[in-house]
Amino acid sequence: MQKLKVLVLSPQSRLDEVCSEACRSRINDYFEPLWNETGRDYTQEELLALISDAEVIISSWGSPSLTDEMLEKAVKLRAVGHAAGTVKNLVPKQIFSQGVKVFSAAPRIALSVGEYCLATLLTSLRYLPAFDSAIRDGKWKIAGLKGKELTGNTVGIISASSTARAFIKLLAPFQVKVLIYDPYLTEEAAARLNAKKANLEEVMSCPIISVHAPKLPATERMLTRELLALIPDGAVFINSSRGPVVDELAFMEELQSGRFIAALDVFEKEPLAVDHPIRSLPNVLLSPHIAGATVQGHLALMEEVVEDIIRSLREEKTTYEVNERMWEVMA
Amino acid sequence: MQKLKVLVLSPQSRLDEVCSEACRSRINDYFEPLWNETGRDYTQEELLALISDAEVIISSWGSPSLTDEMLEKAVKLRAVGHAAGTVKNLVPKQIFSQGVKVFSAAPRIALSVGEYCLATLLTSLRYLPAFDSAIRDGKWKIAGLKGKELTGNTVGIISASSTARAFIKLLAPFQVKVLIYDPYLTEEAAARLNAKKANLEEVMSCPIISVHAPKLPATERMLTRELLALIPDGAVFINSSRGPVVDELAFMEELQSGRFIAALDVFEKEPLAVDHPIRSLPNVLLSPHIAGATVQGHLALMEEVVEDIIRSLREEKTTYEVNERMWEVMA
Repeated sequence: MQKLKVLVLSPQSRLDEVCSEACRSRINDYFEPLWNETGRDYTQEELLALISDAEVIISSWGSPSLTDEMLEKAVKLRAVGHAAGTVKNLVPKQIFSQGVKVFSAAPRIALSVGEYCLATLLTSLRYLPAFDSAIRDGKWKIAGLKGKELTGNTVGIISASSTARAFIKLLAPFQVKVLIYDPYLTEEAAARLNAKKANLEEVMSCPIISVHAPKLPATERMLTRELLALIPDGAVFINSSRGPVVDELAFMEELQSGRFIAALDVFEKEPLAVDHPIRSLPNVLLSPHIAGATVQGHLALMEEVVEDIIRSLREEKTTYEVNERMWEVMA
Repeated sequence: MQKLKVLVLSPQSRLDEVCSEACRSRINDYFEPLWNETGRDYTQEELLALISDAEVIISSWGSPSLTDEMLEKAVKLRAVGHAAGTVKNLVPKQIFSQGVKVFSAAPRIALSVGEYCLATLLTSLRYLPAFDSAIRDGKWKIAGLKGKELTGNTVGIISASSTARAFIKLLAPFQVKVLIYDPYLTEEAAARLNAKKANLEEVMSCPIISVHAPKLPATERMLTRELLALIPDGAVFINSSRGPVVDELAFMEELQSGRFIAALDVFEKEPLAVDHPIRSLPNVLLSPHIAGATVQGHLALMEEVVEDIIRSLREEKTTYEVNERMWEVMA
């Protein structure tokens, strides 16, 4: 069988992050690859010159977007696999009517986000940052401060996205009650996640709240001042999705009251302003939008889409395929 | 049926921590309790005066130890339930030959310890304290620093104690490989934990190591300089059991090299000396011996032993009973 010609857009430095040795061998064995040897990402012009021969394109962070002009020349193209997060800006809608299949490794990133959520949740419930910082200040126990258990607790989830699903899977041994707000989720689909559908008010009243909503016009500032006021005292609030989902001003006021703990990986504006008052609050655990970033998670990205493309070529069931309808509702 | 006379040793303030409202009602309904109304723990003399009538004794932290002299007077005593950790110092060995059943809620505490271990493990793997502290210092991302996933990783466990078992249960969704060092564990018992037996060198060479060994003469400084040198660069080392299990001097030298991360809840000497150099190391997550201390865990303690005593009186299967052999090998 003639091997398919694969155009791998990522240069060596990016491949080191998102493509394991095993994946390179797999691409070399199964396809006829053209590796990017320029030491940097291709320009739009370079890609336009290369695309007419490509039967499969593999991209990742930094790869140039495919334009309608490129698609016109991409007469042999059968599949595009994006070894990274959002695929929306990489391919125009036109690609679907051309019969090109699109694959995105975004769901693999969800596992890393799920682990981040459980990490910050357990750590916040136990006040570990406060204990660590008291010891660094020369103290020992903190009078009256006692951690809480996750086991048997109630977790409120906003949006049943892939990151929420990854997080919920990790909650299995804790016998928690899970409430999900998601207007597109049916009761049956919620039950398959061992969760119950709830409205936003109910979810925001849980002792543990985790935000997984995508950034869309409909989700902008969906967590209003009134909803934020429902967060119970002593709660743990986690945001690993997008900062603008929260009304930032009202949220800062709630945080400054110190009445609950928040683990925040995303912010209204990133990077955070150097003088942003959130940087000095004691009741927040801050990270620079790295919930989805892990060594193992990144290294698996190209392998996941490559294997999925191979499954698709063999007409087997795929995991990472994105269709036109999914593309339309994507963030 | 005549209700059994229960002597509850803990005063009100302690009961608020270890005995739920439901548990108080249960004791009032099922037994004829004598509650401690003194507002403090009983003295040895007070307990000696009260013990001859007691058919069941319920104790917790701060309760006076039972002496051989007390046991001579405790002619009606059938069961002692300790709503706390270590029961060894509470009852003398003599109690078993008198046919008194002994119950300890220690295994309930193990669940809180298991949650602590997973909290510190996930948080350390993701470098969350380093990211948080960089943001507090006005920075954003840290060049070259990327977290690791737990999923698919290898976890080395030292001693198959109740805390180790609680931790291993929480690892279920992560599809990790678990290696356990425990001279008393059979291959079959390890397999039931989804783990494999290993020697101490193999466990200390894992990328994740969690110490669960009790403090016994045989475990003192069992983690020697040679074994500590095996800890791989970039590893996460967790100690939630006892400080003296580790050779402190050699351990401090390894930690000061910064080559791995440690989450430490226990130390050679507690509280830690105010000027202990460990207090300022960046690669440690420190807590003041609180791995087993949670609101929910503590509130469940008396209920767990009371229900187990009731099961025992009904000749049903018990969970928390301690026999003479267990007492002998206890820390």
